[in-house]
Amino acid sequence: MKPYRELSKEELLALQEELQAEYDAEKAKGLKLDISRGKPGKEQLDLSMPMMDVLNGETVLNAENGTDVRNYGVLDGIPEAKELMAGMVGAKPSQMIVLGNSSLNIMYDCVARAELFGIMGSTPWSQLDKVKFLCPVPGYDRHFGVTEQFGIEMINVPMTEDGPDMDVVEDYVNNDPSVKGIWCVPMFSNPGGVVYSDETVKRFANLKPAAKDFRIFWDNAYGIHYLYDRPESEQPHILNILEECEKAGNPDMVYEFCSTSKITFPGAGVAAMASSEANVADTKAKLQWQTIGPDKINQLRHVRYFKDINGMKEYMKKHAEIIRPKFEAVLETLEKKLGELEIASWSKPVGGYFISFNAQKGCAKAIVAKCKEAGLVLTGAGAAYPYGNDPEDSNIRIAPTLPSTEELSIATALFVTCTKLVTVEKLLAEM
Amino acid sequence: MKPYRELSKEELLALQEELQAEYDAEKAKGLKLDISRGKPGKEQLDLSMPMMDVLNGETVLNAENGTDVRNYGVLDGIPEAKELMAGMVGAKPSQMIVLGNSSLNIMYDCVARAELFGIMGSTPWSQLDKVKFLCPVPGYDRHFGVTEQFGIEMINVPMTEDGPDMDVVEDYVNNDPSVKGIWCVPMFSNPGGVVYSDETVKRFANLKPAAKDFRIFWDNAYGIHYLYDRPESEQPHILNILEECEKAGNPDMVYEFCSTSKITFPGAGVAAMASSEANVADTKAKLQWQTIGPDKINQLRHVRYFKDINGMKEYMKKHAEIIRPKFEAVLETLEKKLGELEIASWSKPVGGYFISFNAQKGCAKAIVAKCKEAGLVLTGAGAAYPYGNDPEDSNIRIAPTLPSTEELSIATALFVTCTKLVTVEKLLAEM
Repeated sequence: MKPYRELSKEELLALQEELQAEYDAEKAKGLKLDISRGKPGKEQLDLSMPMMDVLNGETVLNAENGTDVRNYGVLDGIPEAKELMAGMVGAKPSQMIVLGNSSLNIMYDCVARAELFGIMGSTPWSQLDKVKFLCPVPGYDRHFGVTEQFGIEMINVPMTEDGPDMDVVEDYVNNDPSVKGIWCVPMFSNPGGVVYSDETVKRFANLKPAAKDFRIFWDNAYGIHYLYDRPESEQPHILNILEECEKAGNPDMVYEFCSTSKITFPGAGVAAMASSEANVADTKAKLQWQTIGPDKINQLRHVRYFKDINGMKEYMKKHAEIIRPKFEAVLETLEKKLGELEIASWSKPVGGYFISFNAQKGCAKAIVAKCKEAGLVLTGAGAAYPYGNDPEDSNIRIAPTLPSTEELSIATALFVTCTKLVTVEKLLAEM
Repeated sequence: MKPYRELSKEELLALQEELQAEYDAEKAKGLKLDISRGKPGKEQLDLSMPMMDVLNGETVLNAENGTDVRNYGVLDGIPEAKELMAGMVGAKPSQMIVLGNSSLNIMYDCVARAELFGIMGSTPWSQLDKVKFLCPVPGYDRHFGVTEQFGIEMINVPMTEDGPDMDVVEDYVNNDPSVKGIWCVPMFSNPGGVVYSDETVKRFANLKPAAKDFRIFWDNAYGIHYLYDRPESEQPHILNILEECEKAGNPDMVYEFCSTSKITFPGAGVAAMASSEANVADTKAKLQWQTIGPDKINQLRHVRYFKDINGMKEYMKKHAEIIRPKFEAVLETLEKKLGELEIASWSKPVGGYFISFNAQKGCAKAIVAKCKEAGLVLTGAGAAYPYGNDPEDSNIRIAPTLPSTEELSIATALFVTCTKLVTVEKLLAEM
């Protein structure tokens, strides 16, 4: 098949008719599938069911330091949970605050505390005329939702294959004191699957922020979420931002986040924050008024289940075995059905939860709408951009993990048909 | 023994010497006991251990509406958890938001949201010159900690045996638009054990707040925490504030809170907020940016364990059997050792977690300090007052639940000795 742009009007019209028939047939199947979010599938959740039994028949539930985890107290998590979660990001246990089931909640609360009370004695952001965040795009819609909710001005920063465009980042951060933060998913970025290069991480660590309360919000959500089983030395990796910031004399510049949401249970995992000891102290001083402490029983349950970080990493191979075929099925179909048409490009991730798809300019909303009309709910077009506004109307996030292989195959076929049809319609409209 | 105030100087001096010797002997025992917080004891926590096994061997963990509780989603809790928690406060399930393990966290977040975003479109409190909260005293120190952290001005309201002095409450709430809230523990108040009378609840419901974003923070922490097993009709009760507010045309005036912290596990229970459907909608609209959802597995675990609210109420009788003897032991010792001396008064609670003790004016700090010197940590004197400032320096909160019966007996003996000694010293100093 030739690239669409080389087709004549007649060829396009014929194609449109053919695609419309295909679409109508697919629509008639009455599909009802929502793959709008990066949710693990049932088979993945089943993996962790033995964790439900790990505290069976116990009569004592003490942390290693003797704390009864059933009772009140321990603001920042039990020691063994700190150690486990520290292993996920290469931090020291003293740099950890281990909390409940949602790292998004921890991030939101970090922003909320900065708004209400400031960071380490700085002016509360809510008292400033203007607060800005840099937002590498495409990025994670819920990050942008948090900053939008707080009325923080969001500035798009283009993503490259090495991470955010650091020239742009440096220019803003080092010169504009109203820039207080940047959202980063440094490993298998959401949705692009980008792994920040060593150079990018070093440039982050060596920023010279105009605002002393500038913080990098380093959402290391997929730090051990590889799709392929390779020796660790051959896996994609990122530099340890906490260490790099320390080396660069910026120890307090980063808040890092991680969770077991996509390791055990999204609804009942353990989430944590890692940062300098000074940031940890500053955070705990405010956190102590918000809660007496997190669910320590669930922390203990996770530690008993995994034993240590190696146990957790080994476990992630089972997830990979489940989701890798789903990614590969989508990627193969895209390649086979769209590869030669030159009407789209997409990421080929080796980890994380998403495929980032770029249609022709101005087509994304129409494709998502057409899919929805036929029963397939995708993440809203534009969601990966601040204010839901993709200036190119081109990006679509594909989340292959939730559906069964069979559902996914129907969904991908439909998606391809919609992409083709919308593109043809656009080409015709432009003639 | 005669009342102390009738003793001569010589008698007091002799008594002081005797008490000092007693104190020294008790101090020499090297006690190390912290009863500063209202924590359940080990035996109570053991009660709930079978809950750890309730999801054993399950292969499917679905809520009654089919939601897989292991995955992401469900911002406000699963339906059966709403129903269970609604039963605790007599609310409708549609009035519930069921979240994680800490009702304090929910309360803090309610204040934080009001500060950041306002309530139902009102000006965010952080943008106002002055925000005030009424604080019935003595009250719960962590409530006052939250409002202090937000820089909210706290105004003491005296407690009566029917609840807060409603003349004072009405005067402030109905006339001062900067009064935005009041902290209430309506049933077995912390620390006084007061149960708000029907008249008090009705007067609350019929307030005519000068501020339309005034909210009653109704912390129903001990709603089913009776010490005595009586037919429900003979138990202390409070009117349903949600219903009363609705009847009075003030449906949105109250945020109510409850939790299973002192029913199952303080560290791993389920907490909830109950309010009008309009407040619930307003809260969820902001909450959706903070989290994807609470730990639904733990919610399901609680529901499966208790079945329904009757199961939970029945269960509370077992708690009562464990803690009632502790309360009674303390009360008997106080009565026997201090009853005739007329140097102190104390509450005789029939529910809740505390005994509120009033020493002679100006004695509380000294008594707590003397106990501490001998190894017994009590709640800090003044903690039950905003800014930790008890104007009379008289109130001490006794939390009898955590220690074993034996520890409690040693602790009470020491407390009595310290109270006597400090009072004698004061009487001598005033001569």
